[in-house]
Amino acid sequence: MNTSQRSSAGHRVELPGHRATFGTREKLRLDCGVELGPFTIGWQTYGRLNEDRSNAILVCHALTGDQFVAETHPITGKPGWWQSMVGDGLPLDTSRFFIIGSNVLGGCMGTSGPREIDPETGQPWGLSFPVITVADMVRAQALLLDHLGIEQLFCVIGGSMGGMQALQWAASYPARVFAAVPIACAARHSAQNIAFHEVGRQAIMADPDWCGGNYLAEGRNPSRGLAVARMSAHITYLSEAALHRKFGRNLQDRPSVTYGFEADFQVESYLRHQGSTFVDRFDANSYLYITRACDYFDLAAEHGGVLANAFTGTKTRFCIVSFTSDWLYPTPENRAVMQALNAVAANVSFVEIETDKGHDTFLLEEPEFFATMQGFLNGAAEHRGLTR
Amino acid sequence: MNTSQRSSAGHRVELPGHRATFGTREKLRLDCGVELGPFTIGWQTYGRLNEDRSNAILVCHALTGDQFVAETHPITGKPGWWQSMVGDGLPLDTSRFFIIGSNVLGGCMGTSGPREIDPETGQPWGLSFPVITVADMVRAQALLLDHLGIEQLFCVIGGSMGGMQALQWAASYPARVFAAVPIACAARHSAQNIAFHEVGRQAIMADPDWCGGNYLAEGRNPSRGLAVARMSAHITYLSEAALHRKFGRNLQDRPSVTYGFEADFQVESYLRHQGSTFVDRFDANSYLYITRACDYFDLAAEHGGVLANAFTGTKTRFCIVSFTSDWLYPTPENRAVMQALNAVAANVSFVEIETDKGHDTFLLEEPEFFATMQGFLNGAAEHRGLTR
Repeated sequence: MNTSQRSSAGHRVELPGHRATFGTREKLRLDCGVELGPFTIGWQTYGRLNEDRSNAILVCHALTGDQFVAETHPITGKPGWWQSMVGDGLPLDTSRFFIIGSNVLGGCMGTSGPREIDPETGQPWGLSFPVITVADMVRAQALLLDHLGIEQLFCVIGGSMGGMQALQWAASYPARVFAAVPIACAARHSAQNIAFHEVGRQAIMADPDWCGGNYLAEGRNPSRGLAVARMSAHITYLSEAALHRKFGRNLQDRPSVTYGFEADFQVESYLRHQGSTFVDRFDANSYLYITRACDYFDLAAEHGGVLANAFTGTKTRFCIVSFTSDWLYPTPENRAVMQALNAVAANVSFVEIETDKGHDTFLLEEPEFFATMQGFLNGAAEHRGLTR
Repeated sequence: MNTSQRSSAGHRVELPGHRATFGTREKLRLDCGVELGPFTIGWQTYGRLNEDRSNAILVCHALTGDQFVAETHPITGKPGWWQSMVGDGLPLDTSRFFIIGSNVLGGCMGTSGPREIDPETGQPWGLSFPVITVADMVRAQALLLDHLGIEQLFCVIGGSMGGMQALQWAASYPARVFAAVPIACAARHSAQNIAFHEVGRQAIMADPDWCGGNYLAEGRNPSRGLAVARMSAHITYLSEAALHRKFGRNLQDRPSVTYGFEADFQVESYLRHQGSTFVDRFDANSYLYITRACDYFDLAAEHGGVLANAFTGTKTRFCIVSFTSDWLYPTPENRAVMQALNAVAANVSFVEIETDKGHDTFLLEEPEFFATMQGFLNGAAEHRGLTR
């Protein structure tokens, strides 16, 4: 089923992929106590589900990602965010695996979130959309798997917030997860993580066009605040070394500084571009909701403060991946997950990839990272009895 | 001479300390080419200048600091920003040294900047104020020293942007600087430094109350944008470890999260407070100008790309100080200055202080840092022949 989506720039874009309604018979009980339903999920798939439905990989997207994992993005026209990883012959091999990408609850690409219409009022949800958690996102994804008739995932995989979902999947539905690959993430959001998110939220909420969250009804869009939020966050996705290598103090198309406030430096021009293109594809309220879900994420807290308890008795095979230059979710955060899994004698491997490209390395073609993915997935597939 | 200053909150505050007009006979030639004059400098002093005028220490303030180094701040009512360092018996001992703090050019505490009145038009300068550099700030300070009849500083000292000024002093006026202590700084702003500043500037310029820089004339104030800029910057002044120790995931006066967008976490409440109090004491356009001056700072570039050339033949005694957890101006940036000084056989000591408190350690009572300051200044004073 196709659906359409209005980009923030106002263009109506036909969203490819699938969409279905959930929570009609039985509503979805959210962590905040709200019973949500009906609500929709938008998703996309690549490859074919095998006969015994044992080859499904759920790819969980990061903060501003979506279900368009391995195809041209319907709004930006750019390649899918993991097109280098997902495809025929690639580590997430579509000739072997059935890849599912679904937009998270609270998102703005076809799954219910603050930009969608509240069926009860006929108006956009806005801030009346319930505040959701990473566990809620995963609950919604579990309903999608039910709908697709998939009892157990071969693997759940994701970077950043996608990695948090992978961890939550393993904790909430251990029997439904044969393997899990949480990449560049953490079992809880740190004070610094929360601080950066709060800057982004305040930037949005400071924009008068935010209108107390009611901008859709008022025909406005807090695009300046959202752009600033994106710029601030984007710095945290890179590393000082990567920024230095990429831009240094190079000037943008000018022989010398202009003694003004234009984008004299390439890095300024780059950041402004990141901000201005982001607002064309993302909803400001969604940004509030999804950052909030990350901030609330604290897997140990749900288990008496002991992270290992989240995984007691797990049979899932884990591969934890971190990047040396990731200062958003640094290696110690990833290692803490590995140690918790070790404490419950889980089957876990841990790989720290040497790179200066920062957090966003999980989106890049980093050979050692790709080799790690391929190796782990092939080994796990063999154990699962998946033939090529 | 006392003067008055309107705080951003609209209160008229009598500024204590000194103020004088410069650039009347001869204008000040700025890096941008503008001839500035007349202009004013606001400054404050502590201790007494000795008879041969050889005991003066110029304390250069950081981005949002000012001349109220060691006394109650006239707007905030809080202790001076270096009150723990400057005073009788403290490392910058006012019973021995004559301490000068002056507000930088482009600032908003009595020195000419975009908030002040352009004498030619009778209107606030706003964006018609010329874009200044760190070298311009130092040129203005040199005029102040002339005015005070001080031929040579015993020491120029400062952290962060204050450290950049100290380096610029040593490079621009080697004969006028007996000793220099650049703390937690760099000889050039990195791509990441520029990126964070650009986020702050964009936050201000995105605020409709900025009015294209003309908010004073229009009776408005971009306080929301400025608060976001401050919040973003403030994170960079701390460290992940310090934020974790101070706040962790502690909630703010509530037993559990509220599933909303209030400041559930202490770190959010803290950041919001940093933002909202900052706007009462600082001018948004000044923030643009002063961050720009930092971004333009590149001492090597002025000397054929070779930093050592900035210090050829220097007789100044240097003490370079960095902090292990400072990720804004990390130790390698400070070490590069030390290496450049070594390359010209300068008298330089380099101390990296072990601390998890981040960049802002230079504002805190860190015992090893204080011992370093005291030791270096006492040794240098002995060499200078300053009696107690």
